Amino acid sequence: MAKGLTKRSENYSAWYNELVKKADLAENSAVRGCMVIKPHGYAIWEKMQAQLDKMFKETGHYNAYFPIFIPKSFFSKEASHVEGFAKECAVVTHYRLKNDPDGQGVVVDEDAKLEEELIVRPTSETVIWDSYKNWIQSYRDLPVLLNQWANVVRWEMRTRLFLRTAEFLWQEGHTAHATRQEAEAEALQMMNVYADFVENYMALPVLKGVKTESERFAGAENTYCIEALMQDGKALQAGTSHFLGQNFAKAFDVKFLDRNNKQEYVWGTSWGVSTRLMGALIMAHSDDEGLVLPPRLAPIQVVIVPIFKKEEELQAISQVADDLTARLRKLGLTVRYDNRDTHKPGWKFAEYEMKGVPVRIAIGPRDLANNQAEVARRDTKEKAIYPLEGIENKILQLMDEMHDNIYQRALAFREEHTTYVDTYDEFKRVLADKGGFIYAHWDGTAETEQAIKEETKATIRLIPLDAPEEPGTCIYSGKPSKRRVVFAVAY
Amino acid sequence: MAKGLTKRSENYSAWYNELVKKADLAENSAVRGCMVIKPHGYAIWEKMQAQLDKMFKETGHYNAYFPIFIPKSFFSKEASHVEGFAKECAVVTHYRLKNDPDGQGVVVDEDAKLEEELIVRPTSETVIWDSYKNWIQSYRDLPVLLNQWANVVRWEMRTRLFLRTAEFLWQEGHTAHATRQEAEAEALQMMNVYADFVENYMALPVLKGVKTESERFAGAENTYCIEALMQDGKALQAGTSHFLGQNFAKAFDVKFLDRNNKQEYVWGTSWGVSTRLMGALIMAHSDDEGLVLPPRLAPIQVVIVPIFKKEEELQAISQVADDLTARLRKLGLTVRYDNRDTHKPGWKFAEYEMKGVPVRIAIGPRDLANNQAEVARRDTKEKAIYPLEGIENKILQLMDEMHDNIYQRALAFREEHTTYVDTYDEFKRVLADKGGFIYAHWDGTAETEQAIKEETKATIRLIPLDAPEEPGTCIYSGKPSKRRVVFAVAY
Repeated sequence: MAKGLTKRSENYSAWYNELVKKADLAENSAVRGCMVIKPHGYAIWEKMQAQLDKMFKETGHYNAYFPIFIPKSFFSKEASHVEGFAKECAVVTHYRLKNDPDGQGVVVDEDAKLEEELIVRPTSETVIWDSYKNWIQSYRDLPVLLNQWANVVRWEMRTRLFLRTAEFLWQEGHTAHATRQEAEAEALQMMNVYADFVENYMALPVLKGVKTESERFAGAENTYCIEALMQDGKALQAGTSHFLGQNFAKAFDVKFLDRNNKQEYVWGTSWGVSTRLMGALIMAHSDDEGLVLPPRLAPIQVVIVPIFKKEEELQAISQVADDLTARLRKLGLTVRYDNRDTHKPGWKFAEYEMKGVPVRIAIGPRDLANNQAEVARRDTKEKAIYPLEGIENKILQLMDEMHDNIYQRALAFREEHTTYVDTYDEFKRVLADKGGFIYAHWDGTAETEQAIKEETKATIRLIPLDAPEEPGTCIYSGKPSKRRVVFAVAY
Repeated sequence: MAKGLTKRSENYSAWYNELVKKADLAENSAVRGCMVIKPHGYAIWEKMQAQLDKMFKETGHYNAYFPIFIPKSFFSKEASHVEGFAKECAVVTHYRLKNDPDGQGVVVDEDAKLEEELIVRPTSETVIWDSYKNWIQSYRDLPVLLNQWANVVRWEMRTRLFLRTAEFLWQEGHTAHATRQEAEAEALQMMNVYADFVENYMALPVLKGVKTESERFAGAENTYCIEALMQDGKALQAGTSHFLGQNFAKAFDVKFLDRNNKQEYVWGTSWGVSTRLMGALIMAHSDDEGLVLPPRLAPIQVVIVPIFKKEEELQAISQVADDLTARLRKLGLTVRYDNRDTHKPGWKFAEYEMKGVPVRIAIGPRDLANNQAEVARRDTKEKAIYPLEGIENKILQLMDEMHDNIYQRALAFREEHTTYVDTYDEFKRVLADKGGFIYAHWDGTAETEQAIKEETKATIRLIPLDAPEEPGTCIYSGKPSKRRVVFAVAY
């Protein structure tokens, strides 16, 4: 199955596209820019969803569901939202088809034109704050801590599976608070929840920080974000959390009576991650043989493959394999015993390598005789023989070891690809030679940010939260700077 | 909180509408026909989803995700699908907005007109079979057993929360098989999965059967369905499962090489349930004080309310309540301890009654002194005093008792509202007097079916699967009939 997977070193982009298809994760559909998420890809997304949903609920949030359509006029209500937000949206103008009077097919019924066009949601702040207006009257109604799992549409011109698609799946949190402090703390908290998830489940280290004004969400006062580094030295924004101030409350007239009986506008946040995380997961860890999945998100964590020639051998192996499967499941692991006789072991090995199954256990007649099994781990491709007795605990332990190993590998890669530069020449040289994150001084102006972007394609990914104050001079303008910011070329 | 809930006996329809809002389940949005599912409503839907998803996976299905948009031309490919399926759809014609040159807002950018219009999916057979064409070449690729959780849009003119909305949430299974027998068995199996779910989780008895030709899904050869009876004597279709024959395979040219190396068209099924089930759940069990939730789908199964005047009393009660909460959770129950001092116990009692929490435990100082608690069950409103020791097992047992009681109550109601009639006069009289399911003879023609529908609003809900052969004469035409079918006025 690995036949034809381009090497990362040859063409990283081709490698990614081929991997997504060969590992059966997703494919393009008949509709431009819209993907089909195939069962193996969707199973990984489901594990991500389940964990994130748990973390949202543990931090006090509830799920709800708001309409997919937003009246066109809603977009004009928050001035910077409509200005800053891309206007590439799917626009619904009619509500009926009819039989084509001239032919076989169907045509749009021009009599069924909507009075006001509806936009397929690109994000739901407007329609949600329109509801909050009716829900919130007093400080007793606050905070409102909601999340929704939904599909959204942004009409992208150049699309790539998972990384940038016209329709994608995501969650969007939308919260309302009585005070600025509480809303700011919420926005920060959710950035930390995202970082926790990406590091401890996706095994991917992230930088935490805030966006510059020009990279901020349209309508936000502050945008927190996490950024991860891919194996080609490009950055990927893995999640954002916005402090909205009172902007949407003012746009949709959401006021409340505070504890002092005074009318105030409500404070808001919004935060989201999407199926883009699938792209990050694939690109961060995988190798030239296929997908490498972090064990905590792998839909199948252990596959058992019998090695046999005769039917009696399969029967004897199956007894041991069934028992082992039961023992592994008892420990909470997801196990597949692949006893198909339509495919050879070598074919199966390649398939599970391509699909990223963390642990493969092979059992043949000689293993049976010795009460042992061969265990291969996907991350390092190391094989080892273990006695069958107690092997399940070994495998369970291996899950954590593999998680740590993948994380440490990604961290080491990021550290190798993190450079501090003090001149623009050096900046351009590092970008060209090895990419990665570049810590450099910036004068704080949008003009400089824009000029660097145009000349090098690198953008300011974030202003790190934990960056120490360090006086310096801007690599581009030579003007004074108080601290370094992080540049990179990004997905 | 119960103030103002119309009695069922006065106006069942008003009672339902008020209940949906007062129990905080859903509300209308700014977009015509699209609802907002509020946290309490969504939490019930999540429990439904979780259980159904488990049952789908246990029967070998995987989840996937297909695009929300369907090219207009796809609908014309399956002749009866386009003929029979309602053409009330949301039609996307443009992909960009622009600032209004004459004003403040945004307008549709006429330069961004799509070459072919896209339809927001009303159901996904077409776009999914278009993908299956690329996935299926040989019998080895079969069966394909997929399900998707998604939102769909049908532009309904008259909408009601949960029961009929322009956008709704649902799951749609789409399977492909090598033989007719296998596909027929799949369609039947999924009807049984639905019946199992509705009876054993929603505590609602259903009839199982097949639809008449005129009530069949557009593009299906056979439609299995389950039907439940509401408290006003009207029927509600709770789920359908379609045997599609080779119709969609032919329309989208999906062929495979069978075991004899012969090219054949693939056999298909599709099956779905939606947020309409929420409507059934609410209408089937609830009473004039509010929602009655079947315990297995209640987001909060037990609420503990402290009865206190002084702070010391609350402290003492809280110690016992925290311990009890822990013991109940250990048994897998979802518990809320409502120790808010902003609301009186009476207010809390009414609120949890309205929201349908199955069991309420009240603990006051006298209960503490006697090591006891007062337990109220929502279904019968009976109260009883139990010793605190071992009370958690009593509550756990109560969950099953309440499930059975609600189910039996609904079953008794259905039996009282099931009538066998042999004349059209009797048929009309029963419809007018008590409604419910009416078993009557029908001559098997669409004309008779249509005439009865026009004259009485009653439709043939199903031809029961387990109906014995029983020769008779059609109540309308007097022509011969082989077995009775089930009529009702339906939602």
